[in-house]
Amino acid sequence: MSIATAVTSLLGIRHPILLAPMDLVADARLTEAVSAAGGLGILGGGYGDEAWLRRELDLLQPTGTRFGVGFITWSLAKNPHLLDLVLERKPAAVMLSFGDPAPFSEKIKKAGSILICQVQSLASAKEALACGADILVAQGTEGGGHGASRGLFSLVPEIVDALDATIPVVAAGGIADGRGLAAALSLGASGVLMGTRFYATQEAAGKDAAKARIQTANGDETLRSIVFDISRRNVWPAPFTGRCLRNAHLDRWYGREVELLRHLDEESGKYANARAAGDFDIAAVIAGECVGLVQDIPTAQEVVERTVRVASAILANGSQRIQLDPD
Amino acid sequence: MSIATAVTSLLGIRHPILLAPMDLVADARLTEAVSAAGGLGILGGGYGDEAWLRRELDLLQPTGTRFGVGFITWSLAKNPHLLDLVLERKPAAVMLSFGDPAPFSEKIKKAGSILICQVQSLASAKEALACGADILVAQGTEGGGHGASRGLFSLVPEIVDALDATIPVVAAGGIADGRGLAAALSLGASGVLMGTRFYATQEAAGKDAAKARIQTANGDETLRSIVFDISRRNVWPAPFTGRCLRNAHLDRWYGREVELLRHLDEESGKYANARAAGDFDIAAVIAGECVGLVQDIPTAQEVVERTVRVASAILANGSQRIQLDPD
Ligand SMILES: Cc1cc2nc3c(=O)[nH]c(=O)nc-3n(C[C@H](O)[C@H](O)[C@H](O)COP(=O)(O)O)c2cc1C
Ligand SMILES: Cc1cc2nc3c(=O)[nH]c(=O)nc-3n(C[C@H](O)[C@H](O)[C@H](O)COP(=O)(O)O)c2cc1C
Repeated sequence: MSIATAVTSLLGIRHPILLAPMDLVADARLTEAVSAAGGLGILGGGYGDEAWLRRELDLLQPTGTRFGVGFITWSLAKNPHLLDLVLERKPAAVMLSFGDPAPFSEKIKKAGSILICQVQSLASAKEALACGADILVAQGTEGGGHGASRGLFSLVPEIVDALDATIPVVAAGGIADGRGLAAALSLGASGVLMGTRFYATQEAAGKDAAKARIQTANGDETLRSIVFDISRRNVWPAPFTGRCLRNAHLDRWYGREVELLRHLDEESGKYANARAAGDFDIAAVIAGECVGLVQDIPTAQEVVERTVRVASAILANGSQRIQLDPD
Repeated sequence: MSIATAVTSLLGIRHPILLAPMDLVADARLTEAVSAAGGLGILGGGYGDEAWLRRELDLLQPTGTRFGVGFITWSLAKNPHLLDLVLERKPAAVMLSFGDPAPFSEKIKKAGSILICQVQSLASAKEALACGADILVAQGTEGGGHGASRGLFSLVPEIVDALDATIPVVAAGGIADGRGLAAALSLGASGVLMGTRFYATQEAAGKDAAKARIQTANGDETLRSIVFDISRRNVWPAPFTGRCLRNAHLDRWYGREVELLRHLDEESGKYANARAAGDFDIAAVIAGECVGLVQDIPTAQEVVERTVRVASAILANGSQRIQLDPD
């Protein structure tokens, strides 16, 4: 059983399910697992750690897996040569998020890769379309990691309407199961991109303690803030903020960001140590509101299969709701 | 054609579509129009203007319309006798939003009305269930008016799972058409409640200039803030903030709320005058992110019919997406 959409045919995949390019978490192993399960794995190029990127690409290459690579666009702009390094490996797709895709779009498309742009608003969707994007990922504020303020529910259909079927839209943020996939398709999307759900899998390159927190947290227990970016001295451009699980550090500094900046030398040191030690009372577990839907740590294949199975059942049964009038 | 769910049978209505009890905007005329179209009209009891409430109830009564009445719970707590006044009119349902429903739930249920509670988080959903709610409205941050921070996309299935089918869930926030209804049902909801979409109808008790702004705005042009509450001297309890269209006043004071408080005498006077004059560069048009899906000012009946028609088509065609494996 598979679900066919404009995205599955464009990307040449079985299921309209994309792995979010989670910085360091979406490594070669997870990327390969999602692609092998019939979705599209997208390597988390993130802030562009060149050594990491080379190593993971080297691991992917011999498997012959169809894969994508994701970049944080404003960060790529500081190290544009990383794009060349990636394009040499002939990725099926390159995904750009957070920043202006214009300087890179032509090169990506000329290299034969599909250009996926992740956008957070109607305005950024129009910009990405103008840059020649082949697929847009509409990212809602409920998603894990960096993003902006618009909720997914109306963002998807509004972008779908604005694009007028020129290119397909993929929904991201708050999706962790087949209900989310079926809902996204109902809203006019042609697929989903999931981050948090794939973080909590066997293959993800995250610490077990972080995965366990995702598994047990409920959806009320995340916050969108700039606290962890300040703490790790990685300040993002506006309007982006990062969503992660609440912990002691976030509860302490949320709403007191200026004070945190005043204590930055001390606090950033503590934060770096906590990250290294896997102390998630201080270090952030980056995750979205759909943590409340994540109750286990299965394989990525199991996630893909379940999602397709449940979505198919919902799609197949929808017509039973409709009652024709007796007259 | 109609769509049958747990909510339609519980409320005895044809379509799983509820009118949001918008303070002053959802008057007797709009309430009756939505009920007549097969949904459930819910009168906007709001802050409990007694004279307004009596008048609108008097208008509704002779029509024999099945209707609900909505209250802002923390405000009702200041004038609890308003509930008695409403229950005498035998509403099909009473909806409580924003605050602890416990002091009122027994009385509502004893009077034979269905208790609908609007909630914004998993925690508030559990509280409302414990208070004997018959239906929960899960309200996402994208919605118009007051609300909290969670996005609708994962809030709905998380609450559905937590309730374990004891009572049905209705989705609210960001829904303006049949795609939204179909998506809400896919996520496990049994219906939708719409505010912004019904504001922009012929029957809504709003100024034409306000409706025109909703019709032309896109979804990037709203903000959740406390600016308009401060400006109208109507400060809400945490964690609630209000979403309205961006305008000159909001752009001027957003992020500068403390300064606004310092100038309150002057600014609140200006604000009151602007409200009276219908000057929506200063006075707020309360509306949600789904304004981007609202392109006209039809009748409420047209909204209900379109929503059902489009949702039915999506539900009926869902199975065409599924491809069975050749083997
Ligand atoms: C741990 C984590 C790291 C992320 N890192 C990146 C990243 O490096 N680049 C990027 O474009 N998006 C990143 N994101 C955001 C995802 O692309 C996606 O929008 C998000 O995960 C979707 O929401 P969800 O987590 O609810 O599935 C990250 C998300 C998470 C959870
Ligand atoms: C103009 C307006 C006034 C509102 N007033 C109230 C109110 O008095 N009581 C209430 O419970 N909700 C109120 N709401 C919120 C709605 O109940 C509902 O959650 C919201 O409209 C759903 O989002 P939507 O606007 O995207 O449909 C109001 C919403 C709007 C747009």
